Amino acid sequence: MKSEFAVIESLKKKIPRRMQGEIGIGDDAGVLSAGAQRALPLLLTTDTLVEGVDFIPGKVRPELIGRKALAINLSDIAAMGAEPLAFVVTLGLPRAWSEKWILRFYDGVLALARRYKISCAGGDITRARQFFASVALMGRARKNEIILRNGARPGDWMGVTGSLGGSILGRHLRFAPRIREARYLSRFIRPHAMIDISDGLLQDMGHILKASRVGAAVEAAAIPISRAAIRLAGGRRGRALIHALTDGEDFELLFTVSAAQKKKLEISWKRRFPKLRLSWIGRIRPGQRMEWRRNAKRMPAPRLSKTGFTHF
Amino acid sequence: MKSEFAVIESLKKKIPRRMQGEIGIGDDAGVLSAGAQRALPLLLTTDTLVEGVDFIPGKVRPELIGRKALAINLSDIAAMGAEPLAFVVTLGLPRAWSEKWILRFYDGVLALARRYKISCAGGDITRARQFFASVALMGRARKNEIILRNGARPGDWMGVTGSLGGSILGRHLRFAPRIREARYLSRFIRPHAMIDISDGLLQDMGHILKASRVGAAVEAAAIPISRAAIRLAGGRRGRALIHALTDGEDFELLFTVSAAQKKKLEISWKRRFPKLRLSWIGRIRPGQRMEWRRNAKRMPAPRLSKTGFTHF
Repeated sequence: MKSEFAVIESLKKKIPRRMQGEIGIGDDAGVLSAGAQRALPLLLTTDTLVEGVDFIPGKVRPELIGRKALAINLSDIAAMGAEPLAFVVTLGLPRAWSEKWILRFYDGVLALARRYKISCAGGDITRARQFFASVALMGRARKNEIILRNGARPGDWMGVTGSLGGSILGRHLRFAPRIREARYLSRFIRPHAMIDISDGLLQDMGHILKASRVGAAVEAAAIPISRAAIRLAGGRRGRALIHALTDGEDFELLFTVSAAQKKKLEISWKRRFPKLRLSWIGRIRPGQRMEWRRNAKRMPAPRLSKTGFTHF
Repeated sequence: MKSEFAVIESLKKKIPRRMQGEIGIGDDAGVLSAGAQRALPLLLTTDTLVEGVDFIPGKVRPELIGRKALAINLSDIAAMGAEPLAFVVTLGLPRAWSEKWILRFYDGVLALARRYKISCAGGDITRARQFFASVALMGRARKNEIILRNGARPGDWMGVTGSLGGSILGRHLRFAPRIREARYLSRFIRPHAMIDISDGLLQDMGHILKASRVGAAVEAAAIPISRAAIRLAGGRRGRALIHALTDGEDFELLFTVSAAQKKKLEISWKRRFPKLRLSWIGRIRPGQRMEWRRNAKRMPAPRLSKTGFTHF
């Protein structure tokens, strides 16, 4: 079979646009705003963890798997600027799976649900040879609060929350979905475009640029590199930057705002979210290219090989 | 591990009632009606098909698997009296699965979605060793349109749509989810309780009786037996009745109404749904027992063995 991406592309072509809801398939969540929901659209998203693909059962505490199964969906709803409401969980259970494991998995799900005051609307349990947990999460936003990927405009600044890279050392399980930060942004700042960083900064920035048909000038020195990325890179700064750009599963927010919005945000952010770093990593430009700079000087773009970056 | 039912019971106890939405977990779908949704509650449900558990890949056309993956969720939303809005699909794909199969699966999904004018809000594709398709469906209803399992009252008549049993011969794949019929019932008749028959008439009636804390007198001669059940039973009427009571996957509606509502419904049903049989199979009684009659004479209750009914 082709890659998942190729299959998804074929499927997108297959589904008539009028059946894809308000914004079309391909953003972080689907949006419905027909009839009575016109002023208060509904959002629906889903994401899945599979044993052996997304985690090794014996290696990770079940609470953390449960937590992550919900958190990745919360991050998608956050990236749309919406408020999460309720979720359902589908579990595929091998015969040998212990009930205790499942109850601990749910401890993780419920602790996070409680924190964000969302409801568990039920679920489904089915037999399977390989464990999987699929969560579907419903959200809501006012129509003018929803932030898509396709609104970036030339001149916009690109902002990113937190720090990136090396999430495999633990943050991919324990990250806090940026619901409150995204809601603040969508209600009071209204970014032109927003996405959560799940595939890695480089790929997810690419998603914004492609959907918005714009390019960008990226300032390499401004990219927030996490301690975990530096640790993974054995202290080598160049390699750490590559981790920050490509590791993924950071679940931080990447968004674009006008210069005026940036000014407004710089005043309020530190007061609102004193513990969470906010970095300005570049600007949107016309055209469709990504340009790289270090300390404002042009530099060659990072080059990818099949195994990731070859050099930077 | 214990049975799925036992695990679900443990989980229900684990999830605080206040986190379970409006009606609590355990009906056909979850209901959310907080804040702005108070007058127009949202519903969310999910159901899954797994290769080797729910179907054998080579034996069934992929279009029919796709159709069924959505249809079982539509049936759950119908059983709540609600209107379906939008769904997401999660696919777990083994490496060897062909893209063509997936596209044909989607043909089945989309044909049914088109028929009920619902949106595909997106989905997720993930690697898995065993194919699975999990659909989550969002619906909507006015608050007073939602029909739960727990409202049956002594004196109510039990109505059932269509005919039952033998769905394995094909109807479990091709059934029409009773969305229009259920919407008509929930808007103009307002049954006291309703469920879709997925586990078999006997079990699903049991769900209504247990949730409503009532009993019933069932008229065996009134139970609508499908031609498929008679075929499976080799023409033996007693065995055919057992199929009708226990096979499941009929996806017909079972509901209870007062004598006055029954009268109203008998006048309108044939005009509204001339092709769909409606049968009155018994009445709700106080107490918690199920009593059996044949042509109004008491008869012994059907007895279950581990392999199903022993006699009737």
